[in-house]
Amino acid sequence: MSALPALIAAIRNGDRRALARAITLLESTRPDHRAEAETLIEALQPFAGGSVRIGVSGPPGAGKSTFIEAFGQAGLERGRRIAVLAVDPGSKRQGGAILGDKTRMARLTRSPAAFIRPSSAAGSEGGVARRTREAIFLCEAAGFDAVLVETVGAGQSETAVAEMVDMVILVIPPAGGDELQGLKRGIVELSDLVLINKADGELLPLARRAEAEYKSALSLLRPRSAGWHAPVRAVSALEGTGIAEVWEDVERFRAARQASGLWVRHRAEQARSALWSEIDETLIRQFRDAPRVARRLGDVEAEVVQGKKSPRAAARALIALFLGESPD
Amino acid sequence: MSALPALIAAIRNGDRRALARAITLLESTRPDHRAEAETLIEALQPFAGGSVRIGVSGPPGAGKSTFIEAFGQAGLERGRRIAVLAVDPGSKRQGGAILGDKTRMARLTRSPAAFIRPSSAAGSEGGVARRTREAIFLCEAAGFDAVLVETVGAGQSETAVAEMVDMVILVIPPAGGDELQGLKRGIVELSDLVLINKADGELLPLARRAEAEYKSALSLLRPRSAGWHAPVRAVSALEGTGIAEVWEDVERFRAARQASGLWVRHRAEQARSALWSEIDETLIRQFRDAPRVARRLGDVEAEVVQGKKSPRAAARALIALFLGESPD
Repeated sequence: MSALPALIAAIRNGDRRALARAITLLESTRPDHRAEAETLIEALQPFAGGSVRIGVSGPPGAGKSTFIEAFGQAGLERGRRIAVLAVDPGSKRQGGAILGDKTRMARLTRSPAAFIRPSSAAGSEGGVARRTREAIFLCEAAGFDAVLVETVGAGQSETAVAEMVDMVILVIPPAGGDELQGLKRGIVELSDLVLINKADGELLPLARRAEAEYKSALSLLRPRSAGWHAPVRAVSALEGTGIAEVWEDVERFRAARQASGLWVRHRAEQARSALWSEIDETLIRQFRDAPRVARRLGDVEAEVVQGKKSPRAAARALIALFLGESPD
Repeated sequence: MSALPALIAAIRNGDRRALARAITLLESTRPDHRAEAETLIEALQPFAGGSVRIGVSGPPGAGKSTFIEAFGQAGLERGRRIAVLAVDPGSKRQGGAILGDKTRMARLTRSPAAFIRPSSAAGSEGGVARRTREAIFLCEAAGFDAVLVETVGAGQSETAVAEMVDMVILVIPPAGGDELQGLKRGIVELSDLVLINKADGELLPLARRAEAEYKSALSLLRPRSAGWHAPVRAVSALEGTGIAEVWEDVERFRAARQASGLWVRHRAEQARSALWSEIDETLIRQFRDAPRVARRLGDVEAEVVQGKKSPRAAARALIALFLGESPD
């Protein structure tokens, strides 16, 4: 990829193949690719920021992919360009469909105004977070109006995604009482909109009941941000019921947050915390890679394990080596 | 505290007041105290490692303090010297008694063979973890045979404590069905021994039923370490029922782990991960404190927040400053 300027221009033109190639570049661990990715990001960063970034989370089996298909389609009908990214910080895939399974988003995939990027499972959680963050910037520089970030798999991805989006939509299956308890409270508290999916056919009464239960449960929670009580809505991604209303929720949410100044403040906090994650990861990587450190690391670890040296003193000595100070 | 050698000697003699002073030194953030603490730890580290390190976790109201009082007393009767430390990584105290409330451990406090240290709430989670780790070393150097680490407050302290002890005892109140669900599954999975406390008076039948339910639930879990299925025991800390048996569990656990080699391997892993935590925290602290970085940090943060610079490039530039390389 020697033609970075051409790639940058193509992305600015909204070229989806160029965008896909750029995201692949972000995912590469080769040092020369790393440098190119940084140049790319630096060139496109000024054009980022224009989309609404929406996290879509929920347990496996809730119908997240079907929802994204219907929601994305409704967005296209409203004239929006829609990008979909998947985040899977876990190495193990447990249950649920992978976004790469494009047959599940067949209609969305066919539209020239949509861009769908399956997750790459490789790398550490921190690495995945960075790449997703940067992939969002690239989608924005390519002119997408909404970037949907789907969490795949379980675990901590919900928190990681909440830290990089403007709004979190929680999609859950219709279930009452006991089953609701299984859903981690923390995830509900992270959500700006709760959708009870599958409100169709035989499940409709169950979905209506779950909707009422969640409404009453959420009314007891302190709102996550001033001036916004997370709405609860029973929808059917399959039949399209209630999906257009979700776009209205998104617009109301954006308007409320922009009016209160929280929209900008929230993004500023996210940018600051992204900076510190980068600093942390980069420092540790450079530390590990420094030949002076690498030469001594094994011995020092052994001394700590054998109790001959305290972790505190060993860390200080290795850092002194790293920084080129004379060890004591 | 200029008389470090005297302090070191006193700790080696098992002097509890010297031990308390040394732990206070660990908690200080003054640079000269930091240096003294490091000297102290370095001198005493070779004498550490001889105790069994036991984490005691459980929800507020489970009777952890009462259990520690009874369990500690039973240990003293078996000729052991018992140290008790409290960990409270959260700044907010919610429910439950603080270990500093010594009236709840009146008998234990009076014994010359016991040492009780209330938690200090100050500092970051990482800082609390480090100080507790080092306080364990100091208690061992002072000749204590068992170090009990009580988690105070809720949240992530259980995980942090599990990473610094040999064995985790979970103390829970008698409750069945629905209430059990409230207990995070992860915490049960971290436990090597589950005690249903308050198996006395009117609560006895409830405790027996909870014991049976937990036994059957735990039998479905994969054992946390080979050769050890976490026993479930209904006990009464108040009446002392079943408490002596807990010491037998501790000895059986230690014997099983030592036989399998897991005892040593587990401690080695903990030491290694402690080293990396120290490296991480110390690097970031030195980075923040470096004048070259501090001078530019505000401007660079602002550029990132305004979208003029990517977090990745900003981090690289600041780190280059920190490491004294010429910025580009």
